[in-house]
Amino acid sequence: MDPIKVMVNGLPGNMSTKAAEHILQESSLKLIPYALTGPEIEATEAKIGADAVKLIKPDERQQMMESIKQTEGMVICVDYTHPSVVNDNATFYCENGLPFVMGTTGGDRTRLAETVLGSDTAAVIAPNMGKQIVAFQAMMEYAAETFPDVFKGYGLEIKESHQQGKADTSGTAKAMIGYFNLLGVPFAKDQIEMERDPGVQQSEWGVPEAYLKGHGWHTYSLRSQDGTVFFQFTHNVNDRDIYARGTIDAIHYLAKKIDEGAKGHVFTMIDVLKGA
Amino acid sequence: MDPIKVMVNGLPGNMSTKAAEHILQESSLKLIPYALTGPEIEATEAKIGADAVKLIKPDERQQMMESIKQTEGMVICVDYTHPSVVNDNATFYCENGLPFVMGTTGGDRTRLAETVLGSDTAAVIAPNMGKQIVAFQAMMEYAAETFPDVFKGYGLEIKESHQQGKADTSGTAKAMIGYFNLLGVPFAKDQIEMERDPGVQQSEWGVPEAYLKGHGWHTYSLRSQDGTVFFQFTHNVNDRDIYARGTIDAIHYLAKKIDEGAKGHVFTMIDVLKGA
Repeated sequence: MDPIKVMVNGLPGNMSTKAAEHILQESSLKLIPYALTGPEIEATEAKIGADAVKLIKPDERQQMMESIKQTEGMVICVDYTHPSVVNDNATFYCENGLPFVMGTTGGDRTRLAETVLGSDTAAVIAPNMGKQIVAFQAMMEYAAETFPDVFKGYGLEIKESHQQGKADTSGTAKAMIGYFNLLGVPFAKDQIEMERDPGVQQSEWGVPEAYLKGHGWHTYSLRSQDGTVFFQFTHNVNDRDIYARGTIDAIHYLAKKIDEGAKGHVFTMIDVLKGA
Repeated sequence: MDPIKVMVNGLPGNMSTKAAEHILQESSLKLIPYALTGPEIEATEAKIGADAVKLIKPDERQQMMESIKQTEGMVICVDYTHPSVVNDNATFYCENGLPFVMGTTGGDRTRLAETVLGSDTAAVIAPNMGKQIVAFQAMMEYAAETFPDVFKGYGLEIKESHQQGKADTSGTAKAMIGYFNLLGVPFAKDQIEMERDPGVQQSEWGVPEAYLKGHGWHTYSLRSQDGTVFFQFTHNVNDRDIYARGTIDAIHYLAKKIDEGAKGHVFTMIDVLKGA
């Protein structure tokens, strides 16, 4: 089978670079040597392994894309760009009939979905590409819906550690609170214990030095009122490889769906996980 | 509303005593002062708090039960007896139209269910009365069925600690292996790391001294091949209170179902959890 051609947009950003590097290692995928980039980027190309990828500015993207489509045929786009251009990029992909995997967060998410639904193409839209994290969240959602109040009377502690630059509370932790509330445990966002001090992260949490600048560690602890029962769930992610791997699965899934004729359809990571 | 009358069978055993103590503290339940016991028990009564409970031997149980039914009316039985009498007791409850909560493990489980299905009464049959543990197992089962292979490529470590007297591997840990296998992680029962040494339990695991003689601690750790992602699930249970609390919920659930006319029906802890 011919490899699936993939255009990774958002280079030379960190996440798009990581995704491109992983794609380069997959024999079933082919990284095409073009990428959309922002107007503020001065570089004209990005190095991915030994490959040079030409960076395309917004004002030249329509013309370039027409030529790329002529040369390459069907291309799947991967978007790790910026919240401010999520909607504009989605419109561009849809108008050009390009299936895409949207890994960028933010923007107007309702409009994003509507853009795809009204188009002739399809997309995987996933604010979190970490398959195992998404699966764990789905497990928690299932428990919350199926067994309301099962942890009633339990105390909850949520701790998370992220690189120093991350000012806001973890989005994953915030989503998890909703599930715990349904499971019978009152808890508010400001009760999450955030750690941003690299010294403490290394000495007390055990975050490896190499990942002090890029990690997301979460621990949820539940204790019964009488102290005899203790549950703890932990998910610690270093670097961005988990998201790159999820992106690759999303590409394969989307290619299959396009092959089966999907049009005007939004898929989620839950769909990718189910593989259906 | 009148309290639900409950007969706890298996006194003076540890688990039945714990259940009876919890029932005594519930204003919505009334512990009746009679309990079935084994032929080898020499005591004629058991003390539950300030209450004396008369112990009934197998040879006198039919006669006593008829008199109890006359005095007390509807009684729900709780069975924490012995694997060797699970089926005989179930037959006895069914023949006497007594709804029951079967917390005793072992026996012929198929025949146990059939006995209830062919009767005019109903039962909650639960090899594990720990509601939160059952909920966690259900979450894992859901994930295994919904997201097969999502942890493919991950390494798994299972550690469990139980009181020194427990010779076999944890049943919960063994059940969990099946889910992890479906999630894409090969793992065999003999890879479970069992800890039975009280010294190690106290110094390395941190099991409180008071619970060295009665605890069930379990930790499941998943690590991605490249080491960047780490998941860990822990459930630590000290003493038997979680099972007593689950028993109380099962009694309330069964009383409600009997009230609604349930006959010849087997309920599980999942039903109790769903509360439907």
